[in-house]
Amino acid sequence: MGSIHRDRIELLRAAMKREGIDAYMIPTADFHNSEYAADYFHTREFFSGFTGSAGTLIVRAQEACLWTDGRYFIQAAAELEGSGVTLMKMGEPGVPTITEYLRQNMEEGSVLGFDGRCIPSKEGKGYEKLMKSKKGSLKIGRDLAEGIWSDRPALPCHPVMLLEEDYTGEDIEDKLGRLRSAVQEAGADTYIDSKLDNIMWLLNMRGADVTCNPVALTHILVDERNVYLFIQDGEVTEELRSYAALHRISILPYDDLEEFLAVYDHRGDLLCDPDCVSYSVYLAARKGLENSKGGYEMIGAPSPLVGFKSVKNAVEMANIRACYKRDSVALCRFIMWVTETVGNPGAEPVTESGAAAYLDNLRAQIDDYMDLSFPTISAYGPNAAMMHYEAVPGVSDAQLAPEGMLLVDSGGQYLTGTTDVTRTIALGPVTEEMKKHYTLTAVSNLQLMGAVFLDGCTGANLDILAREPMWREALDYKCGTGHGIGYFLNVHETPPSIRWRVFPGRQDTPFEPGMIVSDEPGVYLEGKYGIRIETILEVVDHTTNEWGRFLAFEPLTLVPFDRNLIDPAYLTPDTRKLLNEYHERVRTELMPLMDPKEQEWLILQTEPV
Amino acid sequence: MGSIHRDRIELLRAAMKREGIDAYMIPTADFHNSEYAADYFHTREFFSGFTGSAGTLIVRAQEACLWTDGRYFIQAAAELEGSGVTLMKMGEPGVPTITEYLRQNMEEGSVLGFDGRCIPSKEGKGYEKLMKSKKGSLKIGRDLAEGIWSDRPALPCHPVMLLEEDYTGEDIEDKLGRLRSAVQEAGADTYIDSKLDNIMWLLNMRGADVTCNPVALTHILVDERNVYLFIQDGEVTEELRSYAALHRISILPYDDLEEFLAVYDHRGDLLCDPDCVSYSVYLAARKGLENSKGGYEMIGAPSPLVGFKSVKNAVEMANIRACYKRDSVALCRFIMWVTETVGNPGAEPVTESGAAAYLDNLRAQIDDYMDLSFPTISAYGPNAAMMHYEAVPGVSDAQLAPEGMLLVDSGGQYLTGTTDVTRTIALGPVTEEMKKHYTLTAVSNLQLMGAVFLDGCTGANLDILAREPMWREALDYKCGTGHGIGYFLNVHETPPSIRWRVFPGRQDTPFEPGMIVSDEPGVYLEGKYGIRIETILEVVDHTTNEWGRFLAFEPLTLVPFDRNLIDPAYLTPDTRKLLNEYHERVRTELMPLMDPKEQEWLILQTEPV
Repeated sequence: MGSIHRDRIELLRAAMKREGIDAYMIPTADFHNSEYAADYFHTREFFSGFTGSAGTLIVRAQEACLWTDGRYFIQAAAELEGSGVTLMKMGEPGVPTITEYLRQNMEEGSVLGFDGRCIPSKEGKGYEKLMKSKKGSLKIGRDLAEGIWSDRPALPCHPVMLLEEDYTGEDIEDKLGRLRSAVQEAGADTYIDSKLDNIMWLLNMRGADVTCNPVALTHILVDERNVYLFIQDGEVTEELRSYAALHRISILPYDDLEEFLAVYDHRGDLLCDPDCVSYSVYLAARKGLENSKGGYEMIGAPSPLVGFKSVKNAVEMANIRACYKRDSVALCRFIMWVTETVGNPGAEPVTESGAAAYLDNLRAQIDDYMDLSFPTISAYGPNAAMMHYEAVPGVSDAQLAPEGMLLVDSGGQYLTGTTDVTRTIALGPVTEEMKKHYTLTAVSNLQLMGAVFLDGCTGANLDILAREPMWREALDYKCGTGHGIGYFLNVHETPPSIRWRVFPGRQDTPFEPGMIVSDEPGVYLEGKYGIRIETILEVVDHTTNEWGRFLAFEPLTLVPFDRNLIDPAYLTPDTRKLLNEYHERVRTELMPLMDPKEQEWLILQTEPV
Repeated sequence: MGSIHRDRIELLRAAMKREGIDAYMIPTADFHNSEYAADYFHTREFFSGFTGSAGTLIVRAQEACLWTDGRYFIQAAAELEGSGVTLMKMGEPGVPTITEYLRQNMEEGSVLGFDGRCIPSKEGKGYEKLMKSKKGSLKIGRDLAEGIWSDRPALPCHPVMLLEEDYTGEDIEDKLGRLRSAVQEAGADTYIDSKLDNIMWLLNMRGADVTCNPVALTHILVDERNVYLFIQDGEVTEELRSYAALHRISILPYDDLEEFLAVYDHRGDLLCDPDCVSYSVYLAARKGLENSKGGYEMIGAPSPLVGFKSVKNAVEMANIRACYKRDSVALCRFIMWVTETVGNPGAEPVTESGAAAYLDNLRAQIDDYMDLSFPTISAYGPNAAMMHYEAVPGVSDAQLAPEGMLLVDSGGQYLTGTTDVTRTIALGPVTEEMKKHYTLTAVSNLQLMGAVFLDGCTGANLDILAREPMWREALDYKCGTGHGIGYFLNVHETPPSIRWRVFPGRQDTPFEPGMIVSDEPGVYLEGKYGIRIETILEVVDHTTNEWGRFLAFEPLTLVPFDRNLIDPAYLTPDTRKLLNEYHERVRTELMPLMDPKEQEWLILQTEPV
C-alpha cells in the first residue's frame, strides 16, 4: 500500500513545483469545519494513507510529515508504513507543532500552499503572519488533489428540506429580523456566514450533506434587504425555490461565493465571525471590502446566530421534552433487552456492534426519527476506557459476557430534537471498585443536575459540582463535563459548555433558560473499564428575588441509573435524595409510554434506594 | 460649612483659569493607589467637604459634581449641603459615569486637568483617549490644591525598618535575582514599580506611611546592575544606608522619579505593569523611552513581583502558622470576655467601639505585634448588615445587649504575618432564622475549606462551593468570597481571589501551595442582622497521581464557630464531619497556648456537634 501513497506524493510534488509552492498543507476539515468531513474531503487520506479523524499532512520537496494526536499514534504508524511520510506525534516531547515546524523549515521568501477553503480563518491568519515574517507568501487558491485524484468521490449533494413552524417555533422572517437588528447593533450592515448549523437554523432548513449532522453545504450573505444563499443546484427543491421567492432569498451556485464577494456592492460594514468562515472566504470578503467604494470595514465579532440558536424557544423546548421521553423509552428497551439477552443460554451471542445495531433499530422506530446524531458508541469492558472507541466488526468488536459493564453512548436526530445519552450497564457480577466508581459518577451527575445558580454563571463556575466527588478521591476525567446540543442539528453545539479551565481570550457564555447542555462525568481506567453517565439538562428559571435571578436545571434524559452498580456507602442523604427524586421523575414520565412488561421493569429500576 | 467649600472651589476655579484648564478632576487615591490615603491626600474632602473613602470631584466653571457609590449617598448628600456641589449617585438610573459626563460636557479642544500622580495609568490612558477624540488635551503636571490649601497636613514620612531573614525567608539578592530573570524572560532589561507592597517585599523593608499597611512611600527602578530607590530623606535610616550600599541600591529623593526617567540611560526594553504605576509615572517612562537612543519600548505585562509575593516561602509559612495560632487565642479570649460581660449586671455596659478597643488591646499584647491590619469592625444587630460598618463613638456606636449577634472582623500586623478573621457571636437568645442563616454560612465556609481541586483551578472555579448552600436557599452575599493576604503587608493582596464572576480581559491566577486566601461567606439582611464567618486558608499539596496534581486548603484561623448559632437541621453528615474536624483541630492546636480557664472554655466550644 505504502508505495501507492509514495507515488501520489510524488505527483503532488510535481504539481507543487508547477505552482511554485515549497510546502503544501492538507488538513482534515471540509469547507465548513464540520465535525465529520465527507469522503470528497479525504485528501489527506488519499495522499498519506492515514484514515484517522484528525491529522494534518505537510509535503515539502525533501520530506512529508503527518501530525496527529495520541488517539491515533499506533494506527497512524501502521497506516503510514512505506509511504515515506514521517509521523509527528503531537504533544510528545521534542515534537514541533505545525507552526514550529513551518517556522523552522520555511526559508526566507518561500511559498506555503493549501486549499484555503479547508482552513479556518483564524488559523489561516496565523500562517499569513508567519509567512510574512519570512518575507514569503501563501498560495491558497488551488486544491492540488484536483489533477491527481481521478476517482475522487463527488461532493455530497442532497435535496434540502424545510421545517414547519410546528418544529421551529419561529418564522424565518422573525429570525431574519432579529439577525438584522443584531448586525445593526454591532455597527454593521451586512452579515456573512459559512457555519452550516447557523445557516440551517436561520433559514428553517435542513440537509443531509454531513454524517449525522442534518445540514446542507451552504454559505449565506444577509444584508438589509436580501439573503444570498450559495448552494449546489442538486440540493435546490421546488419547495425551496418558492420559499426563496417568498422571503427574498437569492439562490446562487455554491461555488460562487468568492466571486460574488469580489463584486458585491457594500453599503456598510460587514459583520464576520472569524469562527464561522474559512480563510478563503475571509480573504475574499476582506478584498471585496477593500475594493468597495464606501471604504467599509470588516467587524470581527461573535455571530449573533450562535447565541440565538443556543436558546431554544417554547415550541422547540416542548418538542424536545417529548422527544427525549420517547428516546429514553427506546434506551430503557435496549437496557431490558441487553441485560436479559447477554448470558442467556438460549440467545444468540451479542457483540458490541450487534448491541449498537439493536439500539439503532429501536431508535429508527420512534416518531419523527431521521438519523443517528452520531455513530453509536457501544464499548464493553476495557474498551470503554477509550473515550472515542468505535466497535468495527472484524477490527475490534468484543463479545458481551454476563459480567462487568457495557457503556453505550448514543443519540438520534428527530424532527422534534437531537438526543444524546450515555448509560453504563452491569451485564452481570461487578467488582466493588466498579460500584464505587459508578456511584461517584452518579453523584457527580446528580450534583450538577441539582445545581441552583445565579444568572451570569458559566460552565467554568459550575464544573466543580460534577468534579468534586471525583477530585475528593484523587480521580478525574480528562474531558469537559458538558456541551450544548442543537435542535435537530449538531449534537455538539456551542454555547453552552461546562469545563473548568478558562482559556485566555475565550469568554464563556452564561447559562440562559432554554439552553440545553449535557452532564457527562465519568471514570476511565485504562485496560480496566470505563464509566460514563450522560444526562441532558435544560436550563430553567428557579426564583427571582432581591438577591438576583436564580436558575436551575431539569433533566431531559429520563433513563434510570443502574441499581446494580450503586453502592449506598458512597451516597450522602443529599445525593440519595437527588437519585430517588430523579428516579421518581423517570417513573412518572415514562410509565404512560410503556407496555405492562416494561412498566414492571421500570418500577423495579426506580424503587427508592 | 458649605460656604467654606464654596469659597475654596472658587479659588480652584481661579487657579484653573490661570492654568487654562476647563475641568479639574480630584480623585481619592494617593500616588500609589493605596487602600487608605493619608490626610495629605484628602484634597477632594478639602474642596467638597465629603469625607467618604471613595469619590471623585470634577469642577468646571459652570458646575461641580461629586461621584460616589451607594454606601455614601446619605452621608454625601449631608456633607455636600451648601457647597454648591452636585451629588452624582453612581449606578442610579440616568446618572452618567465620569467618562460619560466628560464625553457629554467637554467641548472640542478643551483641557482636562488632574494630578496625574493620583490617577492609575489605565484610567489616565482612558482620559487621554477621550480628550484626543475631542481634539482636546490633558494637563496633569500640577496639584492645584498647592496654592490654596495652606494648612495642608504633611506627606507621611516615617523611618523604614528592614526585616531579617528569620521573617522573610529570602535574601534581597535572591529576590532581585528572581526579578531580573523574570524581566529578561519578558524580553525586557529594566523594571519600574510604584506598588508599595511589591517594593517592600522585594527589598525586605517595611514602613509606616499608610494606615494599617506597613509600607513606605517609594518607587523603584531595577536594571541589570542597580536598584534605584526613590524615598523621602526623613525615612532613610543609617541601617538602610549601609544595606543600600551593600546591595547596590541608589537612594534618590522620592520626588525625583519623573526627572530621573527623563535622563535614565536605557539599555533595553522597560517592563511596566500598568496596574503598578500612576499615569504620571507611566507618561514619564514613556517619554524617557521615546527620547532614549536605543529605540527601546515599554512592555506592559503583569509584574513578576505580584506573583512572587503571593506564594509564601517555608519560613514565612512557618511564621504565619504560629502567628495565626496566637492571633486566634486572642480572639477566643475576646469571645469569652464579651459573652461573659454583656448582660452581666455587675459589669460596665459595652458598646461596639468598646468591644473593638478591648480586642485591639488583646492583640497588642501578642508577640511581634506591630499594628492592626485594618480598623476593627465591631457591628451589633442590624449594623452588621452593612458590610463596611465602622462604629464611631458619638456618631454610631450601639450598646451591646444580651441578645442577637455581634459581628467582629479584625486582624493584626505582626513581624510574623498579617491576620484577618471574622466571627459572628451570639450575645444571648437568637431567632431560628438567625441560626439557620448562621449554619448556612458555616456550611459555606466549611465546604470551601474542605475543597480538593486540580492544579490550575482559580477562584472562579471554586467559588460555588461556598455559594451553593446560599444559592440553594435563594440567598447570596454581594461580595467576593475570598482575597489573598500579605505577609506583614497589606491585608488585601492579589492574587489569589475567590469570586464567581469572570470579567473579560481579567485572567484569574490559579492557586499554588503557599498562597493564603480568605474564606468569608455571609448573610446580610438589611435592617435585621449580618453574619460573616471568615477563616484564612493555606493552599497545600494534597496528592499527585496519573490524573494530575491535586491541591487542598488547610485553615490558618483557628477560632471555634458559635455552637449557640448552629442548627443541626442544616448540617449534612459531610458538613457535620467537616465542622467537628475543624473544631478538633482548633482544640488540639490552641490548648497548649491557653490557661486552664480558657482550656475549659475551649473544650466546651469544640465538643463534637
